Parts: sequence; C-alpha cells; structure tokens
Amino acid sequence: MTSLPRLPGLPEVEPLDQTLRDELQHIIDTKTKPPGSLGRLETLAHQMGLIQRTTRPTVTRPAMIVFAGDHGVAEEGVSPYPQAVTAQMVVNFLAGGAAINALSRLSGIELEVVNAGIATPLPSTAGLVDLPVAAGTRNFAREPAMSRDQALSAMQAGAARVRHHAALGTNVIGFGEMGIANTSAAACLMSRLCGVPIDECVGRGTGLDNAGLARKRNVLASALARHPVSTDPLDVLATFGGFEIAMMAGAYLAAAEARMTILVDGFIATSALLIADAFAPSIREYCVFAHASNEAGHRRMLDHFGALPLLSLDMRLGEGTGAALAVPLLRAATAFINEMASFESAGVANRDA
Amino acid sequence: MTSLPRLPGLPEVEPLDQTLRDELQHIIDTKTKPPGSLGRLETLAHQMGLIQRTTRPTVTRPAMIVFAGDHGVAEEGVSPYPQAVTAQMVVNFLAGGAAINALSRLSGIELEVVNAGIATPLPSTAGLVDLPVAAGTRNFAREPAMSRDQALSAMQAGAARVRHHAALGTNVIGFGEMGIANTSAAACLMSRLCGVPIDECVGRGTGLDNAGLARKRNVLASALARHPVSTDPLDVLATFGGFEIAMMAGAYLAAAEARMTILVDGFIATSALLIADAFAPSIREYCVFAHASNEAGHRRMLDHFGALPLLSLDMRLGEGTGAALAVPLLRAATAFINEMASFESAGVANRDA
Repeated sequence: MTSLPRLPGLPEVEPLDQTLRDELQHIIDTKTKPPGSLGRLETLAHQMGLIQRTTRPTVTRPAMIVFAGDHGVAEEGVSPYPQAVTAQMVVNFLAGGAAINALSRLSGIELEVVNAGIATPLPSTAGLVDLPVAAGTRNFAREPAMSRDQALSAMQAGAARVRHHAALGTNVIGFGEMGIANTSAAACLMSRLCGVPIDECVGRGTGLDNAGLARKRNVLASALARHPVSTDPLDVLATFGGFEIAMMAGAYLAAAEARMTILVDGFIATSALLIADAFAPSIREYCVFAHASNEAGHRRMLDHFGALPLLSLDMRLGEGTGAALAVPLLRAATAFINEMASFESAGVANRDA
Repeated sequence: MTSLPRLPGLPEVEPLDQTLRDELQHIIDTKTKPPGSLGRLETLAHQMGLIQRTTRPTVTRPAMIVFAGDHGVAEEGVSPYPQAVTAQMVVNFLAGGAAINALSRLSGIELEVVNAGIATPLPSTAGLVDLPVAAGTRNFAREPAMSRDQALSAMQAGAARVRHHAALGTNVIGFGEMGIANTSAAACLMSRLCGVPIDECVGRGTGLDNAGLARKRNVLASALARHPVSTDPLDVLATFGGFEIAMMAGAYLAAAEARMTILVDGFIATSALLIADAFAPSIREYCVFAHASNEAGHRRMLDHFGALPLLSLDMRLGEGTGAALAVPLLRAATAFINEMASFESAGVANRDA
C-alpha cells in the first residue's frame, strides 16, 4: 500500500473500532421481527453503534453546515445562473427561506452557514460564520483555482467548524454547499481522482440546456488538459476546487475524528469526500450516503465508494437537502434498536419454535 | 370500458379534482431552487395539494391502522413461524414493543391496532379495536377462505375505522398488517388480479428456506388450480384473502373518499390495494407508494400500478413500517411548498437573468 499524504494540522481518522460488532448484531437479530427484515435500518443502527461505541446509538444535536463559495470558472458561462446568486442564496439561507432551512427546521437540525469565499459583497453578515479565504477562486480554465496554502487553510477552517459542533454534543452531521459553477469544479475533481473521462463527469448542474452542456464539457476538457496531471489530493483540490469544497473536505475529516455519523449529500458533497478519502480512506466507515442525485456523474461517484445511497428521490439541489432528508432514517434506526422488544422480553415465539 | 363492480355500502372514490393543478405547479416552480430540483418532493407536494384542494397542503394527525388476522392456510406449513405469533405480536403492538410502535412514536403517527380475525385467544383486548370477523379464515388450500358476506362486511368495517380517523382530522393515513401466512394470501390475490404466474408472486415471506419456499409454491399452485378462475374482486378476496386484507381494502376506499393521502406499505398492503383498485381505479391518484419491499413479487405488483416507490431500504417486515418511514418525506414536501421563499420574495436572480 502506498503511503497516504500527511499534512500538518489535519484531523486523524481511525478505522472503526469493531469491539461491539457481534453484540450489536445479536441485539438487532433478537428484536421481534424476522432477521434482516428491517433492511437498511439494521445496517444503519449497527454502523452508528460502532461509530459511537455503544449498543444504544442516538441522534444527538444533528447539525448541517452549508459552505458557500464562488468559482472563477463561472465567467466561462458554465452555469445558467449569474454568479451573484451565490451571495443572494446565502442571504436567503440567513433569512430562513431556502429548501435547506425548511428541511432543517422540520427535522430539528442545527443549521450553520459559512462564507468560505463568496465573490459578491454581502449586505450583512449577521448570522453568518464569515471565514472567506478570498473573494472567490481564480478561473481554473486559465490558472489554478487557489494555492496549496489556501486549500490547506480552508480544510483546517472546515475542520474547526466541525470541532465547534462536536463540543456542543453533535454526533450526526451533514454538509451542504452553495456556489454557482461548483458542479464544474466537482466534475474536474471527480475526473482526476476517480480516473473517469470528463464527459462522464459533467452534467446539467442547475439546468443547462444542450448547448450549455456542450460548452461546459469543452471548457472543462480544456481546463483538464491545461493543468499537469496529478492525483495528489491537495494539488487536485488547489487546481480545480472551490473554497466551499476544501472546507467541506476538512470538515469530513474532523467529523470522523470526532466519531460522528456523517451524512453525505449529492454530487458536490461527494466530490469533497473524494479529497478527504484520499487523505484518510477510513473515513468511509463513518459515512452514510444519503441520496443519489440526479446530476449525471453522481451514480458513478457513488460506485467509486461502493456506496448504496439511502434515498433516490430525483433531487439535484445541493445545499445539503438530501442529507437532511436522511436524518429521520437515522432516527428510525436508533428508535428500533433502542425501543423494540426482544422475542424473549415480549413473549413472542421465534421461528421454528 | 367495462363497468366496475358496485357493492352496497362501499365508499365512493372520485377522480382527483385538477382545478389547482397549474397554480400548484407555478408555486413550486417559483421557489428559490432550479426547476424540478427537489424531484419527488415536488410531485408529492403537488399531489397532496390536489388531494386536499389547497395550495398549502399539510400533514395533519397522520394515522396508521394495523389490521391483524389469521389464515387457515398456515396449517399447510407455508410460514416458518407458528400461527400463535399473530396474537403474540398483537400483544407486542399493544405493549408498544414492535417496530411499528417505535416508528409511529418517532414520527408522531397515531397508531391503531385492529383485530380483524385472530385465531388464538388474546389475553387482553385493552387498547385493541376488536372487530373479529371470525377466528381466522378457512384454509384456502381446501375451501374458500371466507364467504362473500364476510369479505364485504370486513371491507365495511375497515372503511368505518378510516371514517373514525377522518372525523378526528387525519389527512394522511397508512395501513399495516400482521398475520402469519398472509404473504401466501397476498401472492394468490396478486396472481389472480394481475394475471401473473404464481411462481413469480411467491417469496420467502418472513424467511423460508429453499425447501419451505418450494413447499409454499406447491401449496399455492394447487390452491389456485382448485378454485374457479375469477377476476371479480369480491370473489378473489373471499377465496384467498384474509380478514386483515379485506378490512384494509375497504379502508383504502374510505381514505380516498375522505380525500386523505394514502401511504401504501409493502407486499400485503399492495395486494389489498389490488382489491380496492378493482372497485375504484381512481384510488391510485390518492396513493403514495412508500417503499419497495424485498419480498419477491412486490416490484412486479408496483409495476402493475406504474408506481415508483419513495424508499427502497431492503425492508420486508410489514406492520406498515415502510409507510411510517415515508411520513417525514410527506412532511418535507409540505415544508418546502409552505415555507420556502420565491425568487421574487427573496430577491434572488432567476436563471438567465
């Protein structure tokens, strides 16, 4: 096995402690139901038990951090929306009017919005965690999006936000993003880190028409050809990434370090996980892949992780909305393992009795 | 079109009123998100708006009725569990220890348990809605499971329970079941009403091994050959059905009549919908197919309805557990349509602006 990149200040991720594996499985199998009949809820309860090192896992103070940042490549016309929408949507998040607000309120999720590097000045930063690395990345169609130092400091900032929530008791976390043109960044990360041709990584994003999609493909193919081929995760992140993606990559690592169950959202959130995974492959053991996005390329990225997403609802919004919808399923997993009677305690005859 | 069977005392189901169709779609499309990007949540909100005849649909007092009944065919050894488990599990439901209890508590679902016809005497009926048609059906491997009068009165009893909840304000309802051997009944209903060979309808139920599965197939193939071929839904129900399935069929009709959104659970619940659908095909417009069960045959039954289930979690427990897990998704649909800002109200630039 090749040695993994090690960088100062990044969180350490340990493989899951398997001590409770058999005990958890026994508890699950003696609940009053045919063995295995709760399907994915059973594997979720088992995974959460291992992560939390308990036979009574919980969903405690679930949190959602939405990282927002702008992308220089937006000037290439790769999105049907103007770049100003990133800042406008952040204002909408802070006012409580976006989809992720509605879904977080519904499920009792603590929502935090982080300015990782928005290009447009914000009218107010009240309620915002304001940590911009710069006013948007540079245009990776011409030059690297950011420096390695910027990429690393963004990862560290993302990790610090997760440690804040860990200190408040959060044991389940999801990450969302907002950034016009960030499906372009994610597609390039995917192409480099998964070794997949760019055409199979590019999708319509927020809704490009056929001409727009063709343009996006050309822009990204040229950009990939311009930059040296590297699979070093920090190089790839600095070359094509966004500040929101870099912060999210660091946030993943810190969440696993803090033994949280991590809800992985859609296409962009999964591209950030590619970076974290390149630093610490054990991170996969802490992840629950919340949903399959309709963005072309997400299924292929999920295959890269061998992931079976929980939900498949034809969504492609980002913001962490798919991850937020999975929180009730984690709660359902903890409800059955903690609350159901066993065959013995309920006086129910087991099979072939 | 052939005329549908009409039976006295059964609820009337009207096609969905489409008056608000365009207005609902406009509201959904002007929320601050790319059009269509909330996928199935958008179609759910639209459907619930049409059912409730409002642009502000809600999930109000969601209810789950679990119908329990025994099956004479259990004596043929078609289940790995003894028949007494039906009554034991009902006691478990009443004590709050089953999966459907945990999931209903979690999502604030009103849970009702109905004795539709359990064979084993219950130690207590406290908390039970006790409406047994008989102490289990007859063995359909030898004779019809029940009379047409029994089938019809069971349907009427199921309808009455739904009307009770409608009077209390319920606008979302799901139905679950408990009954050792009821996958055998459901498989025969499916074979007759969908015109599918029995081998494609039979699965492992609660967990038959290969020998048990072969035995079940033989028993059901012989049973189907013994009884006259009919597609009259009351005949098919009386011949192969269970009292819990018959009550559920009537409950579906009453739920649509009361303009509830109906959450359809797994294999057995969908077989009961086949009966309701044969009386009133408009019922499909009120249904949300909650999940795809792992029981062989359920996917094929879903195809019969042209249904795309919301969840696919490898579950095969019954009790209404799949339907209960879909309640948070209905709430998410109402949350986005009621709470999200529009592009205009949030001051967010729309695409190509």
